Amino acid sequence: MEDKKEITLLGAGLIGSLAAVYLTKQGYTVTIYERRPDMRKESISAGRSINLALSDRGWRGLAGAGVDTLIRDNAIPMYSRHIHNLDGSEINQAYGKENQAIYSISRRDINCLLMDAAEENGAKIFFNHRVTNYDINNNIITIEDATNKKTFQISPGLTIGSDGAFSSSRLGIQFTDRCNYSQTYLEHGYKELVIEAGPDNSFLIEKNALHIWPRGGYMLIALPNPEGSFTCTLFFPFEGNPSFSMLKTEADVLQFFEQQFPDALKLMPNLAHDFFANPTGSLVTVRCKPWSFNNKLLLIGDAAHAIVPFYGQGMNCGFEDCFTLNEMITKHAHNWSAIIHEFEALRKPAADGIAELALMNFIEMRDLVGSAKFLLRKKIEGAFYTKYPEKWQPLYTMVTFSHLPYHEALAMGKFQDTIMDKVMELPDIENIWNTQKVEDMMLQLLAESEKS
Amino acid sequence: MEDKKEITLLGAGLIGSLAAVYLTKQGYTVTIYERRPDMRKESISAGRSINLALSDRGWRGLAGAGVDTLIRDNAIPMYSRHIHNLDGSEINQAYGKENQAIYSISRRDINCLLMDAAEENGAKIFFNHRVTNYDINNNIITIEDATNKKTFQISPGLTIGSDGAFSSSRLGIQFTDRCNYSQTYLEHGYKELVIEAGPDNSFLIEKNALHIWPRGGYMLIALPNPEGSFTCTLFFPFEGNPSFSMLKTEADVLQFFEQQFPDALKLMPNLAHDFFANPTGSLVTVRCKPWSFNNKLLLIGDAAHAIVPFYGQGMNCGFEDCFTLNEMITKHAHNWSAIIHEFEALRKPAADGIAELALMNFIEMRDLVGSAKFLLRKKIEGAFYTKYPEKWQPLYTMVTFSHLPYHEALAMGKFQDTIMDKVMELPDIENIWNTQKVEDMMLQLLAESEKS
Repeated sequence: MEDKKEITLLGAGLIGSLAAVYLTKQGYTVTIYERRPDMRKESISAGRSINLALSDRGWRGLAGAGVDTLIRDNAIPMYSRHIHNLDGSEINQAYGKENQAIYSISRRDINCLLMDAAEENGAKIFFNHRVTNYDINNNIITIEDATNKKTFQISPGLTIGSDGAFSSSRLGIQFTDRCNYSQTYLEHGYKELVIEAGPDNSFLIEKNALHIWPRGGYMLIALPNPEGSFTCTLFFPFEGNPSFSMLKTEADVLQFFEQQFPDALKLMPNLAHDFFANPTGSLVTVRCKPWSFNNKLLLIGDAAHAIVPFYGQGMNCGFEDCFTLNEMITKHAHNWSAIIHEFEALRKPAADGIAELALMNFIEMRDLVGSAKFLLRKKIEGAFYTKYPEKWQPLYTMVTFSHLPYHEALAMGKFQDTIMDKVMELPDIENIWNTQKVEDMMLQLLAESEKS
Repeated sequence: MEDKKEITLLGAGLIGSLAAVYLTKQGYTVTIYERRPDMRKESISAGRSINLALSDRGWRGLAGAGVDTLIRDNAIPMYSRHIHNLDGSEINQAYGKENQAIYSISRRDINCLLMDAAEENGAKIFFNHRVTNYDINNNIITIEDATNKKTFQISPGLTIGSDGAFSSSRLGIQFTDRCNYSQTYLEHGYKELVIEAGPDNSFLIEKNALHIWPRGGYMLIALPNPEGSFTCTLFFPFEGNPSFSMLKTEADVLQFFEQQFPDALKLMPNLAHDFFANPTGSLVTVRCKPWSFNNKLLLIGDAAHAIVPFYGQGMNCGFEDCFTLNEMITKHAHNWSAIIHEFEALRKPAADGIAELALMNFIEMRDLVGSAKFLLRKKIEGAFYTKYPEKWQPLYTMVTFSHLPYHEALAMGKFQDTIMDKVMELPDIENIWNTQKVEDMMLQLLAESEKS
């Protein structure tokens, strides 16, 4: 297959913009068509952001393109999950070792910085340009320029679809024979809310933490912003009791928050207004196979594998796509048949892995993090990990602070769970957890598994 | 919601045509738009049929519309599965009790008869009319008349999407928020082949049977046609060894059939030609939820729930949709909001059930039917069923010869499997299967389950 000198990207979101930096640095002429207006020039309606949490995979992806330092100034480290129980008690749980953190960043800030970087490296972004038809068999893409309503057609040598969960380029693949595809929605939606800053941009709750109000079937979370506010998200069922459908009036909302989130409510003066002014978002997992067609189109990021946000890995996974794609370009010396083949082989199982992990973590966040058994379990794992880091890494650490492929982390986590299940069944584990007996048991179970 | 007097159907296939008969009899003015030409007037390319097997659910669906007698003359009863083992031995396994049969029928014959019936009852079918756009939010359907390339728009009070596995009306629903959708392909494809008739339209193998050549990872089947031939289908992996991708030449095909299907090969003089002349079809399962939008659109048949063909229930399930829809129209006195709501509530779990059963039966057909253990298991179940028909019906009987909702049959089958697993573990079961001990064990396990 011939080398490609020019590459067309569909979508200048987080993943498309970072991919453009990598590709221009690899010597390609890059053109991006973006459906939306340039967010650097226009105000975009708020209320649909879910603040992002950058972690090690994301940082590596940014660093590989030389753009991590741009981002770091705008990011706030969160060293712990800070849990707000219904009884008013609070628990601060470190995410990892000292100095290990995930970083709160606004989607808008990071996207603007990455667009700047893409353009500085020579990529050309056409905003307000929407794909209206994708004839995948003839490789003809019809694009409409919203500013003058004119359409034109292009036939790129290589198109990279970075156009998100509702990708129009993926549609082309979906209609080809033997494409496996699924879109699966949660019965929960989300609503963005805000905890206001205090005087002089002060933080009214712990700044360097991701706050969680776990309530079993639902939860509220909050991530810090540089100006002292927190972007909050309520993850909540659409139907049932309680649910979005039950909260019909401002009084309903205030009463519900008074009962369930009284400490947060005190810091949310605009809650009742925001609750009805902001849209209710839905949460989808998208699985697709293949991600490419005829070496002319390759999907990356959410277009290939949209996931729910509960492991904070959607952006990180997409940045890891960009990092791996860049590695493949170098490894296969711009042979795109080989690049696409190995990229899919490496990334598809990883994407399936993080999709499953993200669904699992919703249960953990909304339901388990507040329980004494869960905290004890994490404490035992943490102590063992500190002593035997080469034998055991907690699942959260593997996902968040390592580059182990997601599916391998998932498999290892499931295996470790079988050991922890046995440990937690020990009589009086609450009192003996820190004893040699427990440590020996874990070492023995690990040794047995190595033998078999 | 207002009553609907006129109904638009998309697709005049098996399900759309039968639905049209029911709806006209219920007093509706019915218009059908069908993408293809009128198959009653034009020859349609062969090679993609998979002969159909009508069973009790299908017959009830036809009878409810008064069209079963039209069909019966063209159908050949198959009382047994006739298994052709690799060593040349053959086994004839009755499908049910004496006179219980599934019926071989050509898709074309039954579709033509149903179109005739729909038109006789007043339905108007526009052939060569293809949906080119479905604006579901504004309820505007754009249709192109292939004969003059002109397009026009309609805005029906109620549209029923009976447009098959690749439904264009379903696409409208897929793009709505929180629609769960999946399309899942098997790694096996299919190829239509033929066993020719003997002299004077004689049948060269047992006429009243469904023939199976089970070979583990793949199989060949054959269903009788009235003129003495058999329509055969090879279900075979796309990739691997053996697979479609491995059989590259006519010599490859002949050698493979000589090794694996020597008895069939003798009756297939045109095998090598047909193998390459006929297309290789793919096999998809489609799941969708919801099946309706805004009481303006309802999906039925494959458009709502395409399944793989291994239980012979695709058409039967679609005819059961028509039967149930008609029941709901009567029950809810033409209140379409109530009709659609209860139709989906009844049929969605049933459709999910038969989708799972169909996938399970592929394993059974290609792999298990030839094994001694499997045959013994069926023999034990059959004997118990004969003696205690009120306590036990084999799964195949529930699916094929009853109207028990598919998902209830599936659940009962799984429960019965737990009992049969225990029975089959009895020492020396091959010799004691017909003893009081085994019967008592089954009775006791059933009694225990009733208590709990």
